[in-house]
Amino acid sequence: VTTSAPETTFIAEPGSLEGSTIAVIDAPREAVYRAHVEQELLTRWWAPPELEVKVDEFDPTPGGRWRILNYDADGTEYAFKGVFHDLVPNERIVQTFEWEGMPRHVCLQTATFEDVDGGTKVTAQAVFQSVEDRDGMAESGWREQAPVGMANLSEVARSL
Amino acid sequence: VTTSAPETTFIAEPGSLEGSTIAVIDAPREAVYRAHVEQELLTRWWAPPELEVKVDEFDPTPGGRWRILNYDADGTEYAFKGVFHDLVPNERIVQTFEWEGMPRHVCLQTATFEDVDGGTKVTAQAVFQSVEDRDGMAESGWREQAPVGMANLSEVARSL
Repeated sequence: VTTSAPETTFIAEPGSLEGSTIAVIDAPREAVYRAHVEQELLTRWWAPPELEVKVDEFDPTPGGRWRILNYDADGTEYAFKGVFHDLVPNERIVQTFEWEGMPRHVCLQTATFEDVDGGTKVTAQAVFQSVEDRDGMAESGWREQAPVGMANLSEVARSL
Repeated sequence: VTTSAPETTFIAEPGSLEGSTIAVIDAPREAVYRAHVEQELLTRWWAPPELEVKVDEFDPTPGGRWRILNYDADGTEYAFKGVFHDLVPNERIVQTFEWEGMPRHVCLQTATFEDVDGGTKVTAQAVFQSVEDRDGMAESGWREQAPVGMANLSEVARSL
């Protein structure tokens, strides 16, 4: 089995409310989009492979809610939730995101998909309510996991 | 009739994704919160008085959608929409916001209500997907209308 992890750039400028992960995935936009909105596909890349993923709620429509649970090897649960603002098929998804372990700290996530040489450029942006929230998220696994997430997303999208 | 416009601070630091309006309103938190979640009260302060306000959709629950239409004297329609992420009664509302006139530019709005000397401190924060979006919104009426909005919110909340 050959796997190909795409080059992944994570940007979080000091003092900014924003963090973004960018990668070019060798698959059509349609496949990358499907990997975001089809629940079974999403669970295959949403979390690092060592975590079990369970979907509690997932309604990818404007106003639809989502809630996803991760479990580590000890069975510890990590719950995440949000609502979809809108979805433009094969182009863009805007949603909110909150980790229930640090309630009331919410971010706005925008995923965009563009045709480029080599496949689909994926830009996953998050904007936070405070720089502290952004920094905390970046250093608690987000920055480290960004390339892993893009590699897994790539694998799912390329399998379609 | 005596009206009292609260001192209102609008903060939008250069280069930041954020803009915030802060005021202390001489009314209890319960009243200020009700003015945000009861549709009839909301329409009384949501837009400048010269605009007519019509609610197309308003469901203040997690995942609930809202859509509000403004009409100027010429009958020109301005439509705004979003979804609620969550609501903590008398404390906090988190929602998304989009002006349909500039589609796909979304911000995350957080309104918080705190007890302080003199009433309720209201902080209305918005974080944007880009500094351009933030600047565009600030200069297209947001900054200018912020004190008007707080004055009208104050009037509604104090009437309860």
